[in-house]
Amino acid sequence: MAGVFVIAQGGGPTAVINQTVAGAALEVRKRFPKAKVLGSRHGVRGLRKGDFIDLSALSENDLRRFGNTPNAGLGSTRDKPDDKYCAEILAALKQAGAEAFIYIGGNDTAGTMQILDRAGSDIAFIHAPKTIDNDLAENDHTPGFISAAWFTAAAFWSVDLDFRAMPGIYAGIVMGRHAGFLTASGAAWRKHDADGPHLVYLPEHGFSMKQFLDDVRAVREKHGRCVIAMSEGVRGEDGRPLMETLREQIERDAHGNVQLSGGDLGVAVQGALGEAFPKVRVRVDTFGYLPRGFATMASDVDRSEAFAAGAFAVATCSERSCSVGLQFDGVRTVFRRVPLAAVAGKTRLMPEEFMAPSGRELSPDGRAYFDRLLPPPPDHLPPLL
Amino acid sequence: MAGVFVIAQGGGPTAVINQTVAGAALEVRKRFPKAKVLGSRHGVRGLRKGDFIDLSALSENDLRRFGNTPNAGLGSTRDKPDDKYCAEILAALKQAGAEAFIYIGGNDTAGTMQILDRAGSDIAFIHAPKTIDNDLAENDHTPGFISAAWFTAAAFWSVDLDFRAMPGIYAGIVMGRHAGFLTASGAAWRKHDADGPHLVYLPEHGFSMKQFLDDVRAVREKHGRCVIAMSEGVRGEDGRPLMETLREQIERDAHGNVQLSGGDLGVAVQGALGEAFPKVRVRVDTFGYLPRGFATMASDVDRSEAFAAGAFAVATCSERSCSVGLQFDGVRTVFRRVPLAAVAGKTRLMPEEFMAPSGRELSPDGRAYFDRLLPPPPDHLPPLL
Repeated sequence: MAGVFVIAQGGGPTAVINQTVAGAALEVRKRFPKAKVLGSRHGVRGLRKGDFIDLSALSENDLRRFGNTPNAGLGSTRDKPDDKYCAEILAALKQAGAEAFIYIGGNDTAGTMQILDRAGSDIAFIHAPKTIDNDLAENDHTPGFISAAWFTAAAFWSVDLDFRAMPGIYAGIVMGRHAGFLTASGAAWRKHDADGPHLVYLPEHGFSMKQFLDDVRAVREKHGRCVIAMSEGVRGEDGRPLMETLREQIERDAHGNVQLSGGDLGVAVQGALGEAFPKVRVRVDTFGYLPRGFATMASDVDRSEAFAAGAFAVATCSERSCSVGLQFDGVRTVFRRVPLAAVAGKTRLMPEEFMAPSGRELSPDGRAYFDRLLPPPPDHLPPLL
Repeated sequence: MAGVFVIAQGGGPTAVINQTVAGAALEVRKRFPKAKVLGSRHGVRGLRKGDFIDLSALSENDLRRFGNTPNAGLGSTRDKPDDKYCAEILAALKQAGAEAFIYIGGNDTAGTMQILDRAGSDIAFIHAPKTIDNDLAENDHTPGFISAAWFTAAAFWSVDLDFRAMPGIYAGIVMGRHAGFLTASGAAWRKHDADGPHLVYLPEHGFSMKQFLDDVRAVREKHGRCVIAMSEGVRGEDGRPLMETLREQIERDAHGNVQLSGGDLGVAVQGALGEAFPKVRVRVDTFGYLPRGFATMASDVDRSEAFAAGAFAVATCSERSCSVGLQFDGVRTVFRRVPLAAVAGKTRLMPEEFMAPSGRELSPDGRAYFDRLLPPPPDHLPPLL
């Protein structure tokens, strides 16, 4: 391969998504010194119009600095190409003389690559994994997840110490779409029964507000406070995301005068807790975008794996289209070619065995998983209180 | 002084408040090897009942590890003692044989110390400063602020890169009570006109929703996105905190069925933005407690200053009651004795000259202030987009 590589970023940014660009660009430079690397602005949206940044023009040092910069530096998109859009992408790739297109993203991005690959061309379509949701099939974990999980673990560990100092009830609402990995990572630094978060609510389990309030009451009786990690995507007993149900209810109650979105699950939880525990300090924070691309919380392992995923994508692309999977061989993380079809449009949920039978805390397997991936908490003195 | 030192923590915890305990305890050990240091559980609440932890029993290494642990490790309280409560505190201090009481906290804590000092006793009442709000008179900045400001700067810098990648409107709602320092720190890493946060709204300036939406519109026209840092304490044109006004309105609209608190300013801002910019990606996050005691974001300068503030409190207590002020002599931060009355119950607002005349961005003076205090952003490549 001596021609042109095109690389792009899709979906939500992460703290290390640019490492994958840097890893790919530097691997091309090493293996194919005459080849060109074009970065497409805003994923397929720019690619469709041939809107490129010439990454070959950057020095190695600048590519490494680009890698260290959090959030998608080439721009991203959530566009889901239809047939016409795909034809335009293919035409743009051909016009650029591309031999390979590396698209960094989640399962939607893999889906786009599958469609492009099926159109039939000489171009290798390589999907490089990325998502803080950690929900890609064929992956032990995904680039971007460890950093977001580290942020989340540190946040809950810190807030729990805050609530030891001044008891009350705290809930943090965490992203992660349909998978509970990121929320569960909030319990990664929990060591003892008394440590928070005491309760974890994931999209994988049905959520009942009554049971929730009973759970909180029991924890408060035992520990004098309660810290809760809750997924944005928790589902009611009807299987529907609670946030959707709440939005409808609240909008109806307010006769259209109050438009709620984004924080409304947090507001509902705050309201329910405030009503059930009227004189107690209650605070609900929605972490929102904070965990996903936080500048100072890119883990070293995540950085190097994201970089290596980009390099692997280049190294493997002469063997044609595929997705790159980060798998665990029992000792270390290894990179493997996996078929696009095995990843595209599929969602990997949190394995059931990662949670204790209660569904409210990590099992030993779950703890071992996060211990393997995350940095440990800072050196500290266990609570004196 | 060879007897007993009592130390306690009041008000909201910070990332470095335990450093001040460690600094005081180790200074006592150095100066008065026979003296005892008692930590009072949950501030004056435990002190009143003589509920102590013997800090003299801890090794130097454990005291240093205690210092490295974020959030008030002795427990904290927001109790504001009345006369009877104060008499009980004095009785407990006398019974413990205390020669000095060091209370780490903000302006309310200083107020408690002033009342205790005026009661007349041989005990030295030393107030050691601490607050992420940075609102203490006689201080250039306060222990705890730099770490919280660092978190806030990193958060907005990161989210701005996220919104470069996928344009839209983002607002982060930040604590800080009546002072805008913490919110303004969100702009500390901003270098160019195009960098976010593009708009900063502080409690020191009147806030109008109409003007806000006009401001956002203008920024979007110029930069294609808009990132906003807003204080929880912003005030409407009537001078009342907007959050109070909104809470009343929303509760009335919802006929009492929806109980809103905490996140409601965020929800209102989200609603207003969603209505004014219907097809635009809009997200509002309430940072809440995350910046104030985040485990991995304790700045080295903040740690060492908080430690030194504790040591200074001990070193100065033979000269009787006072507060410790962190002042800037033009070259470095220096510690000075300041009268309790100069700090107690007073609020230092953000100096007017720290903001540009628009009131929406930092002035050169404001930038210089944050540049002096905060770590720089990570090494990165300026945006290619």
